[in-house]
Amino acid sequence: MAEYRLPVRVYIEDTDAGGIVYYVNYLKFMERARTEWFRDRGHEKPALFGDDLMFVVHSVSIDYRRPARLDDCLVATARVTRAARTYFVMEQTVVRDDELLCSAEVKVACVTRGQMKPAAIPAAVLEAARS
Amino acid sequence: MAEYRLPVRVYIEDTDAGGIVYYVNYLKFMERARTEWFRDRGHEKPALFGDDLMFVVHSVSIDYRRPARLDDCLVATARVTRAARTYFVMEQTVVRDDELLCSAEVKVACVTRGQMKPAAIPAAVLEAARS
Amino acid sequence: MAEYRLPVRVYIEDTDAGGIVYYVNYLKFMERARTEWFRDRGHEKPALFGDDLMFVVHSVSIDYRRPARLDDCLVATARVTRAARTYFVMEQTVVRDDELLCSAEVKVACVTRGQMKPAAIPAAVLEAARS
Amino acid sequence: MAEYRLPVRVYIEDTDAGGIVYYVNYLKFMERARTEWFRDRGHEKPALFGDDLMFVVHSVSIDYRRPARLDDCLVATARVTRAARTYFVMEQTVVRDDELLCSAEVKVACVTRGQMKPAAIPAAVLEAARS
Repeated sequence: MAEYRLPVRVYIEDTDAGGIVYYVNYLKFMERARTEWFRDRGHEKPALFGDDLMFVVHSVSIDYRRPARLDDCLVATARVTRAARTYFVMEQTVVRDDELLCSAEVKVACVTRGQMKPAAIPAAVLEAARS
Repeated sequence: MAEYRLPVRVYIEDTDAGGIVYYVNYLKFMERARTEWFRDRGHEKPALFGDDLMFVVHSVSIDYRRPARLDDCLVATARVTRAARTYFVMEQTVVRDDELLCSAEVKVACVTRGQMKPAAIPAAVLEAARS
Repeated sequence: MAEYRLPVRVYIEDTDAGGIVYYVNYLKFMERARTEWFRDRGHEKPALFGDDLMFVVHSVSIDYRRPARLDDCLVATARVTRAARTYFVMEQTVVRDDELLCSAEVKVACVTRGQMKPAAIPAAVLEAARS
Repeated sequence: MAEYRLPVRVYIEDTDAGGIVYYVNYLKFMERARTEWFRDRGHEKPALFGDDLMFVVHSVSIDYRRPARLDDCLVATARVTRAARTYFVMEQTVVRDDELLCSAEVKVACVTRGQMKPAAIPAAVLEAARS
């Protein structure tokens, strides 16, 4: 399945006193890429869709290779590697030019908004995830 | 009216590449103090109370004097200076020992959760704000 | 002086449990606009420039009118209203289409990186700020 | 090795429009626990220590089980499971009463501040990590 690429500029809000991007914030960059990937497939409200369902992150495994710095121009990527009935799995990276800064596997589950029980991903969304 | 004082430790998440606390984050420290001040007066759910009402920040005026740094042990203060029917005004500071780091005036309004229309602060909450 | 306009998409990271953009985060949107406004004038490293100088926010006065929500497409604006020897003042807003969501006056000061003493803004930067 | 436990209150800054704690923020809670665990062992400057060395997060694997909500009183835990020459590994959780909300394995590496090359953890720090 195709890789989605989102440009991300590093602002002072993203950095920490180590002089680098605060490692937690790469997860935000990756989520922006997941969201835009979904929007790109025609889903205008990617995170909280419909009245009853929402996506939640079920697990993340992330490796940090090299730091990004203030004013860097990065790219956050998103690619679905598995789309099941109630969840999907994405491989995501943050790169600077050809350099890999970090990579992650993110499992996102569809749940009901009230009870947060696992729920089937709507067919149209699932189809988009698989394309 | 009495001043409330909340200890706040500075973590790496609070800092930026300038090596100091990211200036936006003082507003978070101040909000924690407002919240705990309310909790201290017996309101367990200070931000979103009841099913229909919530507090929103209407305006902030903040002055920065000196920077805080990683691992600093700060105190965020909160003191009501005016409590009206639909809003209250607080004077807040962040200090390190006897040193003033920043000070702000924050106006907080009570609104309905759906339409976000101005609403009367419940009597018990208002009384707490005035004590 | 000309107004700079930066498109800003609202992601889940920007929101809070009130279902709206967390009010503190508008300051981040405004800072991105200030930064890009500077970059647009040829300053690639707007926040920490040179080895010895940096910009710090000296004071902010911000009014919140209407809330932004998840997935909104906003514009953050920045316009210099005063450029003095050691600081400048900007008028900034966040708008959604023609609707004003919040407006702020932000005073940004030039200081030395070590001692954080007031310092003259370099001539080229000041000229850019005034154009 | 002993488990360290840090109480963490959930504020509005920690939540998102899903009405729950934004999943990325559990990593902040866990980092606070790591930091206080270190401080508890006598290291006042846990993140950026000495002039030449700092700790960076090398990898994180995190599982989310149940959501935390606004005003919750949580506990973030930290326990070293492996302390090697240039890195250590921690098992961390966030719990609410007896309920596990999320758990993570975090690998933290010691690097030089300039080049960010792997470096030996100072003996006193390593000893603390092992106690």
